[in-house]
Amino acid sequence: MSIHPNRDEIRDAARRIAPHVRRTPLLRLAGADLGLAHDIVTKLELLQASGSFKPRGAFNRMLSRGLPGAGVIAASGGNHGAAVAYAARRLGVAAEIFVPEITGPAKRARIEGYGARLVVGGGAYDEARQASEARAAETGALMIHAYDQEEVLAGQGTVALEFEEDAPGLTHVLVATGGGGLIGGMAAWYAGTGVQVVSVEPEGCPTLATALREGRPVPAPVGGVAADSLGARQVGALMFAVAKDHVAQAVLVPDAAIRAAQRLLWEAARVVAEPGGATALAALLCGAWTAPAGARVGVLVCGGNCEPGSILG
Amino acid sequence: MSIHPNRDEIRDAARRIAPHVRRTPLLRLAGADLGLAHDIVTKLELLQASGSFKPRGAFNRMLSRGLPGAGVIAASGGNHGAAVAYAARRLGVAAEIFVPEITGPAKRARIEGYGARLVVGGGAYDEARQASEARAAETGALMIHAYDQEEVLAGQGTVALEFEEDAPGLTHVLVATGGGGLIGGMAAWYAGTGVQVVSVEPEGCPTLATALREGRPVPAPVGGVAADSLGARQVGALMFAVAKDHVAQAVLVPDAAIRAAQRLLWEAARVVAEPGGATALAALLCGAWTAPAGARVGVLVCGGNCEPGSILG
Repeated sequence: MSIHPNRDEIRDAARRIAPHVRRTPLLRLAGADLGLAHDIVTKLELLQASGSFKPRGAFNRMLSRGLPGAGVIAASGGNHGAAVAYAARRLGVAAEIFVPEITGPAKRARIEGYGARLVVGGGAYDEARQASEARAAETGALMIHAYDQEEVLAGQGTVALEFEEDAPGLTHVLVATGGGGLIGGMAAWYAGTGVQVVSVEPEGCPTLATALREGRPVPAPVGGVAADSLGARQVGALMFAVAKDHVAQAVLVPDAAIRAAQRLLWEAARVVAEPGGATALAALLCGAWTAPAGARVGVLVCGGNCEPGSILG
Repeated sequence: MSIHPNRDEIRDAARRIAPHVRRTPLLRLAGADLGLAHDIVTKLELLQASGSFKPRGAFNRMLSRGLPGAGVIAASGGNHGAAVAYAARRLGVAAEIFVPEITGPAKRARIEGYGARLVVGGGAYDEARQASEARAAETGALMIHAYDQEEVLAGQGTVALEFEEDAPGLTHVLVATGGGGLIGGMAAWYAGTGVQVVSVEPEGCPTLATALREGRPVPAPVGGVAADSLGARQVGALMFAVAKDHVAQAVLVPDAAIRAAQRLLWEAARVVAEPGGATALAALLCGAWTAPAGARVGVLVCGGNCEPGSILG
C-alpha cells in the first residue's frame, strides 16, 4: 500500500525548505552521563529557527502552494503560531495568527515580534481555529494547519531524513507526539527501513495511544506539564494513516519523568528543552521504554520554547 | 620556527581524548536571524561534557602522563575545576579541587557532584592555587593547570581541528580569551592555514590585548560580567608564544554587548551561553570586529555554566 508522504515527497520537501531552515545538529551522549546503560544520539531540533521543528512543515506548505496576496493564516498561540509567523516574515508575506484569550503575553509578543498580525479569536483554541477558518474564507489567505495537512507532514518528515543521513545505523528513534505531524512525517520516512519509531506521550495527553487503542483518531484528555506543545485534542487523520502501521510502539510517561528529563538535559548537556521537547528522553529515564540489547537509540529533542529558568523549577 | 603544540600533537590529543569527550556540533545561523549582514557558523562547545571546552585539555594531560595513585589536583572553582573533576571520575582516579572561599555553593556542589574532594584553600584564587601546589608536592598527585601546560593547549586545540573538519573553508574564527589555553591551542592548529583567529575579550579582563601591547604576559584587570570564566589575571607563557604570531587581532567588548549576545543566542537559537561563552559573538553584535567582504565567519560558543534564567536578567 502506498504511504503519504512517501520518501520522494519528503526529499522534495527537504530541497524546498533547505534555504530557509536550519539543519539541526546531533549530539551523542554517553550513557554514563545520563544514568543509562547505553549511549544515545540526540537530534537538537530545539535549535531550529523559532525554537521548534514547526517551520519545516510551515515552509513546505507555503512553498508548495502559490502564496496568495492575502498571505497566510494559522491558529495557534504556541510553537506553530510562532513558526508560521517566522516563515511568513522570511518569505515576505503577511501572516495572521489567531490565538485564544488564554495565550500569555510572552507568546503573543513573540508572534508579533516576527511581524505577524495577532488576532485574539475567542476563549479557547477551537474558537480561535474557527475564527481563523472564517477569516481565511473571507480573505483567500492560505491556511497552514498545525499538523493535519500533507505538506506539513512531509515537511516535518525532513527531520527523519536528516537524522538518517547524519546518524546512519540507528535501530530505534524516540519522538514525542502531540497532534502527530512530526511523528507521522518521520514514521513515513522510516517506513520499510527497519528503524523502529517509538511514540512518547505524556500520560496527561495520550492522543496517539488512545487512537491506536480505538483504531481511529478520537478525542483524548489534554493536561499536564507538556500540554502547551503536545496538547492536541486528537491526532490528525493523515498521521494516523501512517502511524497505525509504522509507529512501533506508543508509550506514556508521567509528568515527573518529563521534568526530570528537562533537568538532566541541562545538567548533562546544557540543553534547555521545553516539557514537550524533553518528553521523548523521559521514556528512557523512567523505563516506560527500554532499549533491547544492541539497540542504537536516537532521541529527538523537538522544542525549546519555555522560560529558561523554568527547567529547574 | 616550530610551534607548540603543532598539528601532529593536536591530532594525537584528539585521538587520545576521543573516547571521553563529545564532538560538539555546529549550528549555521542566518545573518537575518542575528541582525548581521552575513551568516555565521557557530560551534556549540558549551554542549561539551561539564559545560565547557575544559575537559579536552584535562583529559589530554591526564592521558599523556602516567596517572599517579594519588590522582589529580587542580585549583579552580569554575569551569576548569568542574572539568578536572569530571575527567577524573570518568578515568576512575581521585581528584582534589582547591577553590577559594568566594566560590559559591552551586559551583561547590557541582564539583562534589562529580565525586571530587573539594578543598577550600584560602580567601582568593592565588591562595587556593598555592595550597594546591603544596598539596601536590606532598601527595604526588598530577597537577592539571587551567591553561599553561602543553598538554592542556594541545587538548583545547582539538576544538579547532574539529571546526576545520566540520566547517571547511572558514576565513575567520572568533574565540573568547581568558588565560588563553583555548585560543592558544586553536591558533596553533590554524597557524599557516590562512584562517584568521580573532581574540575577543571583555573590556573588564583584557589579558591578551594587554600582553600583546606590552610584548609579554603581564597582569591585567579582572572584572565585569564574564570574570568568572575569563578572569585570569594574565595569559599563560605557552599560549603567548603562539598568540604573538598567530592571533590576527585582539578586540575588546563591553559587558553590555556580552549580555546582548547571551539574549540573542537564546532568542534566535535557544542556546544558553554563560557570559564568557557569548563573548566571541558579542564582537560581531557591537561592531568591535567587522567581517570583511566575502568572509566566512566561525564563532565559538565555549561555555554554558550559568543559571539558565540568568541569561535574560
